[in-house]
Amino acid sequence: MSSVFTKIISREIPAHIIAEDEQHIAFLDISPLAKGHTLVIPKKETDLIFDLDSEEFRNLWSFAQKIGKKIGKAIPCIRVGIAVVGLEVPHAHIHLVPLNTMGDLNFINERLKLSPEEFQEIQNAIINA
Amino acid sequence: MSSVFTKIISREIPAHIIAEDEQHIAFLDISPLAKGHTLVIPKKETDLIFDLDSEEFRNLWSFAQKIGKKIGKAIPCIRVGIAVVGLEVPHAHIHLVPLNTMGDLNFINERLKLSPEEFQEIQNAIINA
Repeated sequence: MSSVFTKIISREIPAHIIAEDEQHIAFLDISPLAKGHTLVIPKKETDLIFDLDSEEFRNLWSFAQKIGKKIGKAIPCIRVGIAVVGLEVPHAHIHLVPLNTMGDLNFINERLKLSPEEFQEIQNAIINA
Repeated sequence: MSSVFTKIISREIPAHIIAEDEQHIAFLDISPLAKGHTLVIPKKETDLIFDLDSEEFRNLWSFAQKIGKKIGKAIPCIRVGIAVVGLEVPHAHIHLVPLNTMGDLNFINERLKLSPEEFQEIQNAIINA
């Protein structure tokens, strides 16, 4: 069964895509912890991120580095945090989350509800950073 | 001024070291969120992880992958989570944390207080995994 992420890759489900290459895609989290919260995933369906082969793992992080730098430029924050939790969707994904306090990277925090216009504005800001 | 991490690298401050190479070191977090919580750092003092050059960044994650797999084998957990927050020590560091629930990767959770014997036992388990 294909995960929601696979449906985003295939464009069956819409998402605010930030960047994409042959092996990876980055898009805004639909239930963000903070404005600019972005998911970076390998297109290959793999549950555990540590199970990617070493070259795939390195390439995924290189892709994430480019996106993390863009988020840091586009979104006001002290720094961009990184998290891999993965207990909800069985497709490895990296969370990149603009942080201002230690408590901001907490997946049981209430998520923001943003309007389509706000998502669009954040997407444009990160893409153009 | 050298950070606490630099003092661990130079052995001025003791730590339960899991692995080390020329550029990286991994050691148990002294205030762990869970048993097996490990920090992976580049020896080079850099505040923001995204500021590492692309090759340093890739190599750091490759080193972390090996440690993450060992933790997953040694410590009972659903999976090993990853976090980079970095608001406390200005030296880039990756947290690898054995997870059982979404709430386990929360840096405002109360930290475990482990005995020297418990740290030693965890260190040995991960090294030998």
